[in-house]
Amino acid sequence: MKKEDFLKYPVVPFEIKEDRKISEILEALGKCSFQARNLSLALRVWEKMLREDTFIFLGLAGAMVPAGMRKIIAYLIKERYIDCLVSTGANLFHDIHETIGRYHYLGSEEVSDIHLRAARVDRIYDTFASEEEFIATDNLIAQWAERFPKKVWTTREFLYRIGKKLLKYKNDGILKSAAAEEVPIYCPAIGDSSIGIALAELYKKKGIKIEFDLIRDVTETAYLASLKKTGVIYIGGGTPKNFIQQTEVTAPYIGYKVSGHKYALQITEDKPFWGGLSGCTFKEAQSWGKIALDADMVMLYCDATIALPLIVSALAEKKIKRKKIIRFSLGEEITVLQE
Amino acid sequence: MKKEDFLKYPVVPFEIKEDRKISEILEALGKCSFQARNLSLALRVWEKMLREDTFIFLGLAGAMVPAGMRKIIAYLIKERYIDCLVSTGANLFHDIHETIGRYHYLGSEEVSDIHLRAARVDRIYDTFASEEEFIATDNLIAQWAERFPKKVWTTREFLYRIGKKLLKYKNDGILKSAAAEEVPIYCPAIGDSSIGIALAELYKKKGIKIEFDLIRDVTETAYLASLKKTGVIYIGGGTPKNFIQQTEVTAPYIGYKVSGHKYALQITEDKPFWGGLSGCTFKEAQSWGKIALDADMVMLYCDATIALPLIVSALAEKKIKRKKIIRFSLGEEITVLQE
Amino acid sequence: MKKEDFLKYPVVPFEIKEDRKISEILEALGKCSFQARNLSLALRVWEKMLREDTFIFLGLAGAMVPAGMRKIIAYLIKERYIDCLVSTGANLFHDIHETIGRYHYLGSEEVSDIHLRAARVDRIYDTFASEEEFIATDNLIAQWAERFPKKVWTTREFLYRIGKKLLKYKNDGILKSAAAEEVPIYCPAIGDSSIGIALAELYKKKGIKIEFDLIRDVTETAYLASLKKTGVIYIGGGTPKNFIQQTEVTAPYIGYKVSGHKYALQITEDKPFWGGLSGCTFKEAQSWGKIALDADMVMLYCDATIALPLIVSALAEKKIKRKKIIRFSLGEEITVLQE
Amino acid sequence: MKKEDFLKYPVVPFEIKEDRKISEILEALGKCSFQARNLSLALRVWEKMLREDTFIFLGLAGAMVPAGMRKIIAYLIKERYIDCLVSTGANLFHDIHETIGRYHYLGSEEVSDIHLRAARVDRIYDTFASEEEFIATDNLIAQWAERFPKKVWTTREFLYRIGKKLLKYKNDGILKSAAAEEVPIYCPAIGDSSIGIALAELYKKKGIKIEFDLIRDVTETAYLASLKKTGVIYIGGGTPKNFIQQTEVTAPYIGYKVSGHKYALQITEDKPFWGGLSGCTFKEAQSWGKIALDADMVMLYCDATIALPLIVSALAEKKIKRKKIIRFSLGEEITVLQE
Repeated sequence: MKKEDFLKYPVVPFEIKEDRKISEILEALGKCSFQARNLSLALRVWEKMLREDTFIFLGLAGAMVPAGMRKIIAYLIKERYIDCLVSTGANLFHDIHETIGRYHYLGSEEVSDIHLRAARVDRIYDTFASEEEFIATDNLIAQWAERFPKKVWTTREFLYRIGKKLLKYKNDGILKSAAAEEVPIYCPAIGDSSIGIALAELYKKKGIKIEFDLIRDVTETAYLASLKKTGVIYIGGGTPKNFIQQTEVTAPYIGYKVSGHKYALQITEDKPFWGGLSGCTFKEAQSWGKIALDADMVMLYCDATIALPLIVSALAEKKIKRKKIIRFSLGEEITVLQE
Repeated sequence: MKKEDFLKYPVVPFEIKEDRKISEILEALGKCSFQARNLSLALRVWEKMLREDTFIFLGLAGAMVPAGMRKIIAYLIKERYIDCLVSTGANLFHDIHETIGRYHYLGSEEVSDIHLRAARVDRIYDTFASEEEFIATDNLIAQWAERFPKKVWTTREFLYRIGKKLLKYKNDGILKSAAAEEVPIYCPAIGDSSIGIALAELYKKKGIKIEFDLIRDVTETAYLASLKKTGVIYIGGGTPKNFIQQTEVTAPYIGYKVSGHKYALQITEDKPFWGGLSGCTFKEAQSWGKIALDADMVMLYCDATIALPLIVSALAEKKIKRKKIIRFSLGEEITVLQE
Repeated sequence: MKKEDFLKYPVVPFEIKEDRKISEILEALGKCSFQARNLSLALRVWEKMLREDTFIFLGLAGAMVPAGMRKIIAYLIKERYIDCLVSTGANLFHDIHETIGRYHYLGSEEVSDIHLRAARVDRIYDTFASEEEFIATDNLIAQWAERFPKKVWTTREFLYRIGKKLLKYKNDGILKSAAAEEVPIYCPAIGDSSIGIALAELYKKKGIKIEFDLIRDVTETAYLASLKKTGVIYIGGGTPKNFIQQTEVTAPYIGYKVSGHKYALQITEDKPFWGGLSGCTFKEAQSWGKIALDADMVMLYCDATIALPLIVSALAEKKIKRKKIIRFSLGEEITVLQE
Repeated sequence: MKKEDFLKYPVVPFEIKEDRKISEILEALGKCSFQARNLSLALRVWEKMLREDTFIFLGLAGAMVPAGMRKIIAYLIKERYIDCLVSTGANLFHDIHETIGRYHYLGSEEVSDIHLRAARVDRIYDTFASEEEFIATDNLIAQWAERFPKKVWTTREFLYRIGKKLLKYKNDGILKSAAAEEVPIYCPAIGDSSIGIALAELYKKKGIKIEFDLIRDVTETAYLASLKKTGVIYIGGGTPKNFIQQTEVTAPYIGYKVSGHKYALQITEDKPFWGGLSGCTFKEAQSWGKIALDADMVMLYCDATIALPLIVSALAEKKIKRKKIIRFSLGEEITVLQE
């Protein structure tokens, strides 16, 4: 290649203007460098997913709900800017907590945790919550689950059931809007959260045990990945990322046709140098066949509490209407109703 | 406080000497600063756990087995330098893979993943593996599981069963030595790994479904945490860290007495600034009561593939003998045999 | 403290709305957590500096100009949203390069550097430039310097002289606008950059040597820090951060009265755990007296190419007019003309 | 390429053995993955530099001396495991401080900086020092400089002069051993440190000004880089890294022949994703011609306080004797005495 081939498109220095829309700002950052360009690219990749006929998985890790990101996820579900959510248990617990009218609080990472302990205030970096109120939410979950039918649950069906319980509350939320829209939510490590703690309490105190069918979670998500071209969006890494990534490995083993996710976007501060799945690049995932060789993909190294509100605000400004959306019925089996 | 109160112990510059033992090197780094001092402190905290009558949990996340850390974990189990392991599914899958005689390979993060895909070579940062061989290991797991009794399994019992299958192989390994020593291993997101994929295949192809009792995993680990004073060691964060941390929250809800982990050590490159559980400090955990207010604790910011071999080599040099070790019987229930 | 004292202000989940201004978005993020809150706080601290009678230092490190940040810095100078700039030499070299009409180019971090070398294309992460054009800029700097009066220069006076050479070019830029506005720019490691290389060439080829009076840079900046209450803004760390921080240590030694910077804001991805000055917290700086004990301060962990355009766009929307601005005359000595 | 080409050398799991030498441990880690492998590779690259006829530059940034790394650098100079040092001013100031018999102290990052300020204790992350003693060291430097001949100094000649003042002290140190061995030390931002503050005081109080010839620092180091094949070792990034890297760009401009550094090793926790020079890869540097296209190079992502003592301890165990060492005379010009 010659010099001219490399030096085609100049960096366009960002100009400060008054009253620029966020979508314009993100557009302009696409002609800058480093993570600014990736932020712009992240918007473009998501937009492409929406304009193409794509099935979009969102993986949600990190304490995003306590940080104030709950309504963004609810918005994405209601607008059907995503088609399936895979989450840590904690985010779903905190979502229930806020939807039923409780709060997380602006705190500080610099107070004495010994004083917090004495006051029974739980800290999540710079955010506080009342331990007593957490226990009340735990108890409510246990009460609900107590009356659930005796069966072995996929986490998807169980969470749908919880979501339906939330429909009567006036606050918006993740599980509530997903129940209303019949958007599937999976939680591969549901025991590993306050939801798990609530169910442990139910079991120990009342002898009622909720049993989960993790393997059907695995086969169902592999099925979803085979419905059409897929796109993946990861907020952080953790089990949600791995669980969505592995659909492309599982599907062919169990008879579904897939060919790697076609769009891929991760917002993280993890790095590839430590070898973990949470921080691994999408290129690495291509060696496994998890990501298609011709995928549009971007790793954005930025705290998600900054990047997510910006990207979704820009998407909202663009008022994109997706042409085809799969509607599901979330019974014991997941059923495609229509497109 | 006066100046003299702050300026008591000088930094002692590290002296280069020939033929120094690793335990001496780590000792000397304790009089240096920054992460060198934390490395030294990590050794000291682990040593304290071993010299005191402590129940030690190890949380294992990240691609530690492909990176060559498997025999270190096996060593820790055999020497009973830990009492309970909580792991990601991937580490256990890769452990089976190596124990039955297969390999991971020295690779590079700079090759073309497109070429790797064509050759069906899977990449984990700078490490390669044969996809075909991974499938063979998957199939073996499915074969074993096919003949397991029909029941609802805790992951602990299921993994013990797998471990017993490995006893006949000559290589040492994590699951194998844990089965031999009857050391409990839990995997809170077992579906989220190649073990989950293997079981999905078994279910889809043969209609045999392994069902897990996640809630009993939760209650059992809370019970273990109540046996005596506890210490926790986290290699990375993820579900293993959260699952072990939450024992202190679960236990009192379900009637066990605990008072926060008394020793705590994490080796990670994650940081607290993003608010996630994986990178949160032990101080934060004190606000929740997960860590005792008077605990000995250290966060070591270092890639675990560097820190773990050094710390355990130093422990080995010190030839510490623990006075009391709990012996378990790993049946459907976990039973304390003796101390 | 009681629970009620900690749980006063709820996190307010971020709401997605169409057509929100960037200043409103940043405001709303102030009621979220983690780095979103710090981004909002960064805006608030800068705004406070502008509304109060403050002398504002900006430290500029990292390849900000090649990344498209040059006009933001020029805007800050022209609007007098800063009063003094301390920069790495590289940013100033790249500023000259663009102001005289040359470019940096959108590239990729994934191309072959061997091919780039063959084509004489220099890479800065995902950004390219022509080596030939860099040499041409070097030569121009050498030509200018060749005719400069023979004297020992503070970097401030030398850079002002260069800035005046740029006044005849039509493009806007950092050095040019600083020369027009007589805003002082310092470069504590000027030899350590392409400017240094240009001057080395001049010396070796023509025997003309530009000599710098680093010590007067030190005393001048300490003097500036004593003019009034000070605020500091650091884009990255490096010598610019240290040089501005040390003014508060130098000033009292040489007879100027200071009492620690009153406002402090850093945008960085460095971390305190490695012990370096670039990543150290402002709290640490308080122990040295560099930052006032009652300062408003915020560390924002974010790539500056994302945070800086957002914060300055929000400042622009707010149309803040500073009440008092110090006007300088940038002769051999720096002279305060008026306020 | 076929599968067999990628899967040649298995990862060899690290075995815990008692009484293993550090050089053996590092060797064994070379068959593991991630940063463990890079640690091993770092040793190998350094060793290669020593066994080949190489001129070795060491760049030293970060608060390495307060952290207890001073005697390691002194050892490297005395053993001539490096040939030229480029350092931040701070490390040299702290070296003087300790060599004349003062201390840094083991502290904590968790104390109140307000209390430290009251006690006039300066904090460097988890390390403390007496402000009063720092001032005494400043004053001593000023006293020495007061009697230095009036001339324009390269930082190399000035630092050599300071080093000779230290010869009478019994403690070992960096500047002292470099003066004894006549190993050149450069400090491209000498004003930006407590040495600069000391000289500012001397100027303001006694009217005596030390003037530096930064441009001759640039030309001298370019000359050194042209003496033979070069290797570079960077502890952190900052001006030392850039200054040594730029020798390869400067040299051909001013008539010296070079062909890129042949060996390159950096120990850092910075990352390439932010685009800065401190964290940029050696591949990127190849596009500039700073690093030879066939160089042996490794980026080790690890806190230097951990990696440096390990690597140098392993080097010491190996008792490598370099065949040819350049001896210099450090007068106004740097002169090669012999090899």
